[in-house]
Amino acid sequence: MTRRDSYWAEGPLPETPSPQSSPAPWGTTRVVGTRRPRIDAYERVSGTAVYPSDVVLPGMLYGAILRCPHAHALVKRVDASRAEGMPGVRAVMTGRSKVADLDWPYSRRDHSKLFDPHCRHEGEAVAAVAADTPQQAADALRAIQVDYEVLPFVADERDAVAAGAPKIRDGGNLAGEPEVSERGDVAKGFAEADVVLERSYRCAYEIHAPMECHGCVARWDGNRLTVWESTQGVFRIQATLAGMLHLPLTDVRVIGHYMGGGFGSKLQAGKYTVIASLLARVTARPVKLFLSRQETMLCVGNRPGAEIRLKAGVKKDGTLTAFELSSLTSPGAYEVGAGLLDWLARDLYTCPNVRTESRVAFINAGPARPMRAPGHPQGAWALEQMIDELAEAIQMDPVELRLRNVPKVSQARGGKPYTSTGLARCLEEGAKAFGWSEARKKQQQNGRYRRGVGSAACLWIAGGGGPPSTVIVKLFADGSVNLNMGASDIGTGTKSVMAMVVSEELGVNPDQIRVENADTATTQFATPSGGSKTVPTESPAVRDAAIAVKKQLLALVAEEKGWDPADLELDGQAVVSRTDPQRRLPFAEISRLQRQRVIVGVGYRGPNPEDAVVNPFAAQFCEVEVDTNTGEVRVLRFLGAHDSGRVLNRLTYDNQVFGGITMGIGFGLTEERVLDRRQTGKMLNANLHSYRMPTALDVPADMVSLPIELGDTECNTTGAKGLGEPVTIPTAAAIANAVHDAVGVRVTDTPITPSRLIGLLAVAHKEG
Amino acid sequence: MTRRDSYWAEGPLPETPSPQSSPAPWGTTRVVGTRRPRIDAYERVSGTAVYPSDVVLPGMLYGAILRCPHAHALVKRVDASRAEGMPGVRAVMTGRSKVADLDWPYSRRDHSKLFDPHCRHEGEAVAAVAADTPQQAADALRAIQVDYEVLPFVADERDAVAAGAPKIRDGGNLAGEPEVSERGDVAKGFAEADVVLERSYRCAYEIHAPMECHGCVARWDGNRLTVWESTQGVFRIQATLAGMLHLPLTDVRVIGHYMGGGFGSKLQAGKYTVIASLLARVTARPVKLFLSRQETMLCVGNRPGAEIRLKAGVKKDGTLTAFELSSLTSPGAYEVGAGLLDWLARDLYTCPNVRTESRVAFINAGPARPMRAPGHPQGAWALEQMIDELAEAIQMDPVELRLRNVPKVSQARGGKPYTSTGLARCLEEGAKAFGWSEARKKQQQNGRYRRGVGSAACLWIAGGGGPPSTVIVKLFADGSVNLNMGASDIGTGTKSVMAMVVSEELGVNPDQIRVENADTATTQFATPSGGSKTVPTESPAVRDAAIAVKKQLLALVAEEKGWDPADLELDGQAVVSRTDPQRRLPFAEISRLQRQRVIVGVGYRGPNPEDAVVNPFAAQFCEVEVDTNTGEVRVLRFLGAHDSGRVLNRLTYDNQVFGGITMGIGFGLTEERVLDRRQTGKMLNANLHSYRMPTALDVPADMVSLPIELGDTECNTTGAKGLGEPVTIPTAAAIANAVHDAVGVRVTDTPITPSRLIGLLAVAHKEG
Repeated sequence: MTRRDSYWAEGPLPETPSPQSSPAPWGTTRVVGTRRPRIDAYERVSGTAVYPSDVVLPGMLYGAILRCPHAHALVKRVDASRAEGMPGVRAVMTGRSKVADLDWPYSRRDHSKLFDPHCRHEGEAVAAVAADTPQQAADALRAIQVDYEVLPFVADERDAVAAGAPKIRDGGNLAGEPEVSERGDVAKGFAEADVVLERSYRCAYEIHAPMECHGCVARWDGNRLTVWESTQGVFRIQATLAGMLHLPLTDVRVIGHYMGGGFGSKLQAGKYTVIASLLARVTARPVKLFLSRQETMLCVGNRPGAEIRLKAGVKKDGTLTAFELSSLTSPGAYEVGAGLLDWLARDLYTCPNVRTESRVAFINAGPARPMRAPGHPQGAWALEQMIDELAEAIQMDPVELRLRNVPKVSQARGGKPYTSTGLARCLEEGAKAFGWSEARKKQQQNGRYRRGVGSAACLWIAGGGGPPSTVIVKLFADGSVNLNMGASDIGTGTKSVMAMVVSEELGVNPDQIRVENADTATTQFATPSGGSKTVPTESPAVRDAAIAVKKQLLALVAEEKGWDPADLELDGQAVVSRTDPQRRLPFAEISRLQRQRVIVGVGYRGPNPEDAVVNPFAAQFCEVEVDTNTGEVRVLRFLGAHDSGRVLNRLTYDNQVFGGITMGIGFGLTEERVLDRRQTGKMLNANLHSYRMPTALDVPADMVSLPIELGDTECNTTGAKGLGEPVTIPTAAAIANAVHDAVGVRVTDTPITPSRLIGLLAVAHKEG
Repeated sequence: MTRRDSYWAEGPLPETPSPQSSPAPWGTTRVVGTRRPRIDAYERVSGTAVYPSDVVLPGMLYGAILRCPHAHALVKRVDASRAEGMPGVRAVMTGRSKVADLDWPYSRRDHSKLFDPHCRHEGEAVAAVAADTPQQAADALRAIQVDYEVLPFVADERDAVAAGAPKIRDGGNLAGEPEVSERGDVAKGFAEADVVLERSYRCAYEIHAPMECHGCVARWDGNRLTVWESTQGVFRIQATLAGMLHLPLTDVRVIGHYMGGGFGSKLQAGKYTVIASLLARVTARPVKLFLSRQETMLCVGNRPGAEIRLKAGVKKDGTLTAFELSSLTSPGAYEVGAGLLDWLARDLYTCPNVRTESRVAFINAGPARPMRAPGHPQGAWALEQMIDELAEAIQMDPVELRLRNVPKVSQARGGKPYTSTGLARCLEEGAKAFGWSEARKKQQQNGRYRRGVGSAACLWIAGGGGPPSTVIVKLFADGSVNLNMGASDIGTGTKSVMAMVVSEELGVNPDQIRVENADTATTQFATPSGGSKTVPTESPAVRDAAIAVKKQLLALVAEEKGWDPADLELDGQAVVSRTDPQRRLPFAEISRLQRQRVIVGVGYRGPNPEDAVVNPFAAQFCEVEVDTNTGEVRVLRFLGAHDSGRVLNRLTYDNQVFGGITMGIGFGLTEERVLDRRQTGKMLNANLHSYRMPTALDVPADMVSLPIELGDTECNTTGAKGLGEPVTIPTAAAIANAVHDAVGVRVTDTPITPSRLIGLLAVAHKEG
């Protein structure tokens, strides 16, 4: 595990096999693979689902955080005396409060203080209050007087590495030496090529912007802390709080009810989690602290933007000979990781000579956080446009060029084979289903509106999941089932998918299966949901637990009736014989089940294959229409062909594809964090009006999900690979390629805004 | 299992051994048996513990029930139209509401309707409302107009069986034929006796009156119902709601946080539970419905009063020759059970000839519910006073008479042996510690204040516990532990005791062990806490789960280090060798534990011994002072000598003894439900002012708990027997015996109020 791919699994990775032996993969299935609505659909659409931001406790106070309004400043003095005396104010906390004098771990490599007098970005926490009402808390914040010494700032990584830039970290503006990865000999590779191209690309910073803002409710019962947090991983939050507050793990209970999205920005605790816990401690009252939309845009994560320079060589027959990629990006003001920009160049296509150099610079901005496929959409933006340019240069269909370079092994991992790779079939079958060849053959267009098609492909560095995970399945005497799983359903339908896995094994209707909330006290251990690893990590553990229940139940029945357990299976809340249709014992008639009332099965995630790599693959195709008068791009249709292993629930699978494409459309066409690079360094669009996310009107009605299932039985015992990230990786690049196909202009910078495109069209017109 | 001892275990009793093999009983212990404060003491005393009545949910409504003000009436018409239009009123429900047209199971044998037009006792539910505030709900109740046809009533079981009594149930006022139990030949027994006495006794009806009133908060998430209920058994509530509302068990989640006492009155769901659930359903809002103190006194249980006639024969040498007991009692208006009055006469002392006849009559009063040792304190009130009279008649010390008749087997169960009986040692060691002989030898007293001593003994019919129970123990990577147990801690310290059991096995400090709330969704199955069976039922299951964790952990270490697992044990959050002091591996250094993050152990309650009876035994001793001017009785000191098997936590054990004696003092001296037997049938003291429970001033400072530990290794794998009920059984009888010792007057009716005693003293004075 290198430093750069450790975003969502910071702990030591497990190497241990699970305590139970692995069952054989499924053959045919009854429930798994069908299209089923979510088991919690009603709650979600009716508004009765309780999210952490809905939690109200008796006597609860409202917390709020005073944030630095400057991009870079030193706090010289904080005077909270007025605030402390205001009506309803129960606590005021600053950097001088003893209880709050804590190190804040941005990552394992970089700490600051919880209230750090050196504010390195707009929105750094300076003080906090708890009051009876949110309004009183807001008033109190305004009454705190802070004297700042405003410092010179850097708002762009290009400025950070320029000569004479203000030094914003003691160690300099670079986060360590450039990381270099190299195989083969790129000089030799370029020499062998018939065509060599070199291009620069730029990606804007993107904000996660989940529907539910970040925050929590914290309550102490004696020395035990309970936190309701909008999080992707309750056990990660538990570990952070236990560490910072010096509590045993069992004294920190983190409950993750429903949660309103995270996309990687809720994999870890925030300062708000610790601040709410401390405010609750000192006031002896529950404290709710949720950030405003503006705060979430400033402080809790972003997808790092990047400068990428890519040089590539290709022979006329389509053989790729060399890639050379250099990148510059920024994690903001702290070293929280901002890598993987080069992974696709290193691993997606067969290429013997690859050299990448990655530079990371600090700027005065909020910390980056893993965002749906960290680094990959940026890398795809460069690589997949380059592939199209290379194809054009050698007069080959770009899909064909990709097909010629599909690898069988992971070149970036020393040539280990993939357990399965559907990249070729994604390209072939996707192109066929999309009507790629026909769409490419269109005649030259004229007039204001011009149409074009584009494609792009990807893999995702992770997506295989892995141990540890421990889950419990309980079968009640009436045949209904409870699943206690520590993994959060972050909106993707995990609960529904896992219910189907249980249903498959126990023959119980998914409607009779309830999945408990992630809760450190009442569920077992799970890693955070993210990295497209939730389904491939948890579904084998859930299956293992269901099998443990089944084994016990069949043993009970075998003993009670004298039947051969090997001849028995479960179906329709009954034990049935595989061979004798007369033998059928409904659960209600199994007297030992009725006496015992519950059967408990514990399941574990078994180990991953040792000598193979588990990755998902994808190809996406789209058609766009460009208004050459305004520069507006309208996406007309999209097709995602995905090899993410076995489809467990076709409905939630397709929805992931559509959601990922939607996010990719935002990355490609509209989303951009705008910092005032010259005057203040402050974010100019920290709101959902100016920060433009795609709406229903920006998304085509014609979206197609085409699962490519190869029957991978090596990856794990359910055959599922990750889906959440690959669906968003190639999207923006496919759009850029389609825009080029439509108007002959290559847009190398995200987002493809009308003003940017109209400018390029004007230049092209002049040059043309 | 006869009908009469099935109060707290209505379901079919398990006969199945547990899935795991039983470990050997403990030898010496490190933690178990010590005196340790409760693990949740801080929450309880600081007011931060959240009880169901503290639960507040967003958008929550307040439910309230309109109750019949008559002892017996028919509802002719309900007009709720005014209430429905009142501000804040969200729902009004009556017997005509389709959703509320449900049978209400008072017991397996007797049903009525949820809103029954035939109101058989004061307080029957007639309608219900849900409103934005409790005040609006109360206003709405007042606005509902009900026309009643008032019917003749019966308020006393003696009236119920009198000729010409109003018939209040279709089948007549008697609940079936009298139950007769007989062994030997009582006529022969009385003929062999040197002394035969026959006396009548009367016990008043007692109210459970726990600190927290009955009620719940109900919320629907889609088709899943979640109920926070103040209950002794979450799984019982779950089963009732699932049955009545036709839901799978997994769709009913019942959460029992802290709860404020039950004493048997919270073993089952109340109408309020169902009504709150229905109100929440129709309003699509959470609904909180807690009863007022008055409502709890009318509707949710009582200890049945009784008329008991007891005839007894004894030889001069102290040999008991015969008991003949007849009783009349009432469960109120419904057949909910009101038995066990005769159990002590049948089983406490060696006696070859016993005949008992038990009659149960209906009256127009709220239903009885099991109350701390159903039937036993009433039976002891008769039997233990009779034993004293017999002793006096043959001029023998009453303790000596009891000692001469200590049985080795359960005569009422066909002569099965007890796994252990400490009755003789309770009497002997209790008398010695109390200074019984010295206190008995006091001189004749004169003057206004007279002192006397009394004793009484008992067994308790149950107290052995038994399967099923399934619990889970989780060991986290930092050595802290989580215990998921479905049994409620009903205020007795169960959580603390179970933490000590885990601590004993895992060598982890109890402070590092957290016990989750009883919760049907996140804990496994447990029967309700009651019947003095919680500790003997759950502690072996908890031990089994802890051992399952230990086994896994030692196996991990054995594999990792190549050590012999048989040589390993756990101590101080480390694995240590039994033989080699150099071998010590802290949990933090067990890499496989650190990788797996959690070890889950599932534990089960094993079977009870097949050919033996598990019962606890006790003897209590007290000294009283009687003010002969006023009739006031002051309890000066009390000693409880209890054989309840192994003491797991000496502190909570002693507190149970003191609490039980306190409750017995109430039964003996102050508590009495007063119905207006002549005019209205209504309860005249349905409040805590007029219904007099003992306060701190009524309880002696000098209370001693003397555990008698016999090292019972047969009863179960922890050696604990039940304690909660025996502590309250002999108390009132011991006081009555002490009062007789002080003033020579025998008070046969509870409670020994000043007016009752002064009357008897006046009669005695006249007669003397």
